[in-house]
Amino acid sequence: MKTKLILSALLLITCLAGFSQEKQSGKTKENSSAGVEKGLIKVSVLYPFAEGKTFDMAYYEAKHMPMVAGFLGSNLVKYTIEKGVASGLPNTPLPFMAIGCFYVKDLAAYQAAIGPNIDAIRADIAVYTNISPVILVSEIIR
Amino acid sequence: MKTKLILSALLLITCLAGFSQEKQSGKTKENSSAGVEKGLIKVSVLYPFAEGKTFDMAYYEAKHMPMVAGFLGSNLVKYTIEKGVASGLPNTPLPFMAIGCFYVKDLAAYQAAIGPNIDAIRADIAVYTNISPVILVSEIIR
Repeated sequence: MKTKLILSALLLITCLAGFSQEKQSGKTKENSSAGVEKGLIKVSVLYPFAEGKTFDMAYYEAKHMPMVAGFLGSNLVKYTIEKGVASGLPNTPLPFMAIGCFYVKDLAAYQAAIGPNIDAIRADIAVYTNISPVILVSEIIR
Repeated sequence: MKTKLILSALLLITCLAGFSQEKQSGKTKENSSAGVEKGLIKVSVLYPFAEGKTFDMAYYEAKHMPMVAGFLGSNLVKYTIEKGVASGLPNTPLPFMAIGCFYVKDLAAYQAAIGPNIDAIRADIAVYTNISPVILVSEIIR
């Protein structure tokens, strides 16, 4: 009788301990996911709009970005794609047709991964656009 | 004796059920956080670099962005701040000193919220920079 009582108390404690541990790790995951970008390096590739410029978003999304992402390996945390739709200022032309961004842990590793593949990347850019992109390396503040 | 056995079995089952539910809700939270941006409207405010241009990042982060975010209410999903550190192309000047972005659910609601506050926003911009920002409205593809 006493043994069973002790046994069920032990079971309960073990269970609650596991439960609370899971809760804590869940919280850690959530926090790290919310702040996942802070402190990372962001490489933005901006495609300025001008008359006569073209941009094939379908190809960019399906082929080009996954190709470059593949070169970056585990240094890449995530990448994003956006399509410019308007200028936010009245009577001003659309500033950019598209922007693609790579969020990486380490800039030197990014450069080391891109370097040997730069010719393949440039040749592929010509497939989806006639724009010369602007590239910005930035630090995520928030 | 039998009652105690049933009791501990019940305790164990309840505990495990709670444990597995916690695991599932953790998973759901993670998924929805990963895809939170897709389909949203992004308003990017880009500050082009040029000789003689200044930008007070501390003020921007502590005062300006929270002020504008406050005008946007529940339409705002999140906002981001990045500090430009270099051009990604050799022998090219830094394209932007800073970029601030608002991720909103609805563009019309964004414009309706900013409109009545545009004078306060412009006056505050003069406090932290002498740059005329470029504004891009874009659609999040990925």
